[in-house]
Amino acid sequence: MNYKMVGRLGSFILLFEAFFMVPSAVLCFADGDRRGGFAFLITIGIVLVLFGALALLSIGAKKGFYAREGLVTVGLGWVVLSMTGSLPFCISGQIPDFIDALFETVSGFTTTGATIVTDYARLSRGMFYWRSFTHWIGGMGVLVFLLAVIPLSGKNEGFAMHILRAESPGPDVGKLVPKMRRTAAILYAVYIVLTVVTIAAYAICGMPFFEAVCHGFGTAGTGGYGVLADSFAGYSPAIQVAAAVCMILFGINFNCYFLLIMGKIRGVALDEELRFFLGMVLVSTAMITINVRSLYATFGETLRHSFFQVSSIVTTTGFSTVDFDAWPAFSKVILLILMITGACAGSTGGGLKCARVLILLKGIKRNVSQVLRPRRVQSLRISGKAVDERVISNTNAYFAAYMAIIGLSFLLISVDGFSVTTNISAVLACFNNIGPGLEAVGPSLSYASYGVFSKIVLILDMLAGRLEIFPILVLFAPATWKRR
Amino acid sequence: MNYKMVGRLGSFILLFEAFFMVPSAVLCFADGDRRGGFAFLITIGIVLVLFGALALLSIGAKKGFYAREGLVTVGLGWVVLSMTGSLPFCISGQIPDFIDALFETVSGFTTTGATIVTDYARLSRGMFYWRSFTHWIGGMGVLVFLLAVIPLSGKNEGFAMHILRAESPGPDVGKLVPKMRRTAAILYAVYIVLTVVTIAAYAICGMPFFEAVCHGFGTAGTGGYGVLADSFAGYSPAIQVAAAVCMILFGINFNCYFLLIMGKIRGVALDEELRFFLGMVLVSTAMITINVRSLYATFGETLRHSFFQVSSIVTTTGFSTVDFDAWPAFSKVILLILMITGACAGSTGGGLKCARVLILLKGIKRNVSQVLRPRRVQSLRISGKAVDERVISNTNAYFAAYMAIIGLSFLLISVDGFSVTTNISAVLACFNNIGPGLEAVGPSLSYASYGVFSKIVLILDMLAGRLEIFPILVLFAPATWKRR
Repeated sequence: MNYKMVGRLGSFILLFEAFFMVPSAVLCFADGDRRGGFAFLITIGIVLVLFGALALLSIGAKKGFYAREGLVTVGLGWVVLSMTGSLPFCISGQIPDFIDALFETVSGFTTTGATIVTDYARLSRGMFYWRSFTHWIGGMGVLVFLLAVIPLSGKNEGFAMHILRAESPGPDVGKLVPKMRRTAAILYAVYIVLTVVTIAAYAICGMPFFEAVCHGFGTAGTGGYGVLADSFAGYSPAIQVAAAVCMILFGINFNCYFLLIMGKIRGVALDEELRFFLGMVLVSTAMITINVRSLYATFGETLRHSFFQVSSIVTTTGFSTVDFDAWPAFSKVILLILMITGACAGSTGGGLKCARVLILLKGIKRNVSQVLRPRRVQSLRISGKAVDERVISNTNAYFAAYMAIIGLSFLLISVDGFSVTTNISAVLACFNNIGPGLEAVGPSLSYASYGVFSKIVLILDMLAGRLEIFPILVLFAPATWKRR
Repeated sequence: MNYKMVGRLGSFILLFEAFFMVPSAVLCFADGDRRGGFAFLITIGIVLVLFGALALLSIGAKKGFYAREGLVTVGLGWVVLSMTGSLPFCISGQIPDFIDALFETVSGFTTTGATIVTDYARLSRGMFYWRSFTHWIGGMGVLVFLLAVIPLSGKNEGFAMHILRAESPGPDVGKLVPKMRRTAAILYAVYIVLTVVTIAAYAICGMPFFEAVCHGFGTAGTGGYGVLADSFAGYSPAIQVAAAVCMILFGINFNCYFLLIMGKIRGVALDEELRFFLGMVLVSTAMITINVRSLYATFGETLRHSFFQVSSIVTTTGFSTVDFDAWPAFSKVILLILMITGACAGSTGGGLKCARVLILLKGIKRNVSQVLRPRRVQSLRISGKAVDERVISNTNAYFAAYMAIIGLSFLLISVDGFSVTTNISAVLACFNNIGPGLEAVGPSLSYASYGVFSKIVLILDMLAGRLEIFPILVLFAPATWKRR
């Protein structure tokens, strides 16, 4: 293990975090929340001291950065980021309990949006801003950000590859351009432009500017933190529709936007994952609209609420306009299934990702054909291209690990005695980075009632979900820490 | 497709079924249930006519029997067996509705034990006997029975292999002896001996003989149909303990018994699946005992109920001594997880099977190692032997199909508006061939309240679960019916 190189990257993460906290500190002081402002300043101080210590310790870092180092950097990086990121909540006393503050921060960075806040009046604007900003930076990834802005020499390309692989969602990472650093920069540029468009759309539709910014961050990262206890329920239909559309935009593989910019419209139109994703949105919206039609006054209202909730859940954002826990069983099951499939690979959304679902479904089909025609060698094709057998085998292992973690977490959090539906939806909502679940963790309620042990399990689930399991799993594997 | 050969095997299935119905008919007449007796006679008549028709049509069947034919024979064979097997219930009027009767019969043959019977007084002993006997023949498989008793020439070995593969549970079929026919005969001999031992144990512990026979069939096939509305709750502790132990015996891979008979004790002791299975029983029993300790008067009683329910669920039998739906969430989640893992491959139990769970878990571990050491080729070993990559890839496809079917069924049956817990437990309990689920399908209730559509979905789930998906899936695949 190249500890010095891991430490060096860790020090950069801390430096960026200190920098990211400045606007929140300013906002706190501007609003007269002096305790909050000092909480941010103290945290910035602590983070800078840690940065200095790590930077000193990692002087003389050598080359030799492999998949192992990439995974460990991402896994540990996110843990440190979350630990320090939760300090302002604790120190200011706005979320006094450390585990609660950690839950809230991990939920932010992992773009989950599951909250333990029951009284929204206790948080100041500076805290709300920080809470929403964690979504934004977590959405595309702090290390991808680092790659995009730190100048790396050409020799460090392999290094960038391992980081991008470990932090980006999806079964495979496509290079947009030959250089990884430029790929990261393009991704962030697209991300920034789309975020600005979203904030503008909210503001134009009549949302107050501060709320538009916070909700813009929550939409962009497909996180789901808002600044109001009733999420999007109180906003105008125009804002709700804008949000539903923007969420979908952030659930699409960012490679598609790059291809569009390059004028490769045909490539986008033939993208099988995109078709699958949009098809799923369409079919789910139609089925739910029919199922809940009697609950709302007009067809238009029914369609709007159905589309909003489908868009929010499938992109794993977690905003809501209605309490979908009160919907009939059929609609709730559709939402539970969408929680698992999730959005496209290479988007800011979570879940299994449509690309993996496609590989798994086509794998079943291939297996049936192989049983019927044992002698014919058959490749598995997506968007017309044969998928590498290694990607297929990784996807299978990913799915097995995914299900094993769901089973184990479901068992562990059941010690608190909540219902089966509450527990399974809590695990699915945290692990897939959605936020609200059903029953006791429904959209109108919070995770505050779970015990400390269950909260820690759910914190690990959120991290494992956002980082796609392996960067967290390798931290527990003895082989990771052995010398070669 | 070699239709004639498939038809010829189908005709044998019908002939055996007519033969199997004779004892029930006799029992009906002996008890004075003349309507029931005639119902069996009429059914036997219909079945024999069908046999004759199929036998005539399949004259001149040629060789050429491959995996495809094996799967289709098993898939269609079980459908025909269930359709005709449900006629006595309908004709006698004891279960007048055809879908209900079909549900009950499929639940019998697939060794599920999920029932729609709400009033046990309506069924005569002849019907109870038939209901329990379907468990027995379904446990080891009707086609395996056929292989064991029909003399096949040496040239038909490949044919026997494809049948045994399609009907037997588990990721891989081990030949016990070079000849498949002898393998089938040995399996049935072990099965018969164990069944007799079970019936004797029940009778010795004081169970009335008729009940001992019916419960013996239900235990052997890991089915779960009984003759009393409260299952095993009213029996003495001795009977309950005997049942718990016997269920475990039928959840073990039958190859182990063959190895024991051959004196290869070391091979059995080192069997990783067996260790995993027994370890799971031990740990689950201990955890549930601690969790439900306060509900029962003595530690002994708590342990007995915990062991019984664990044994019943993990072997996918479905007998009960208490209403475990009233247990705390933690215990219920353990039972739900055991429903999925199931028993050993090559046993009469259902579920994913421990062998597959082991392959999946070791696949995750191998994937982590491969990420950490990309250049080292690593094999996946079970009981010290490397598992064939084809078996691993089949297991992955199986798991994906398994989860996809659970998701789809969960969605489809939710139209009836039952709770999420009821629906997910109903699907798990039917698809894994267990029987009772939670809440509205808990051990003290029945599946009678589901609508016709949901019952058909659950019928298909039971068949897909018992036959391990592919024989049912290929019936819907267009490639199956194409000429080569």
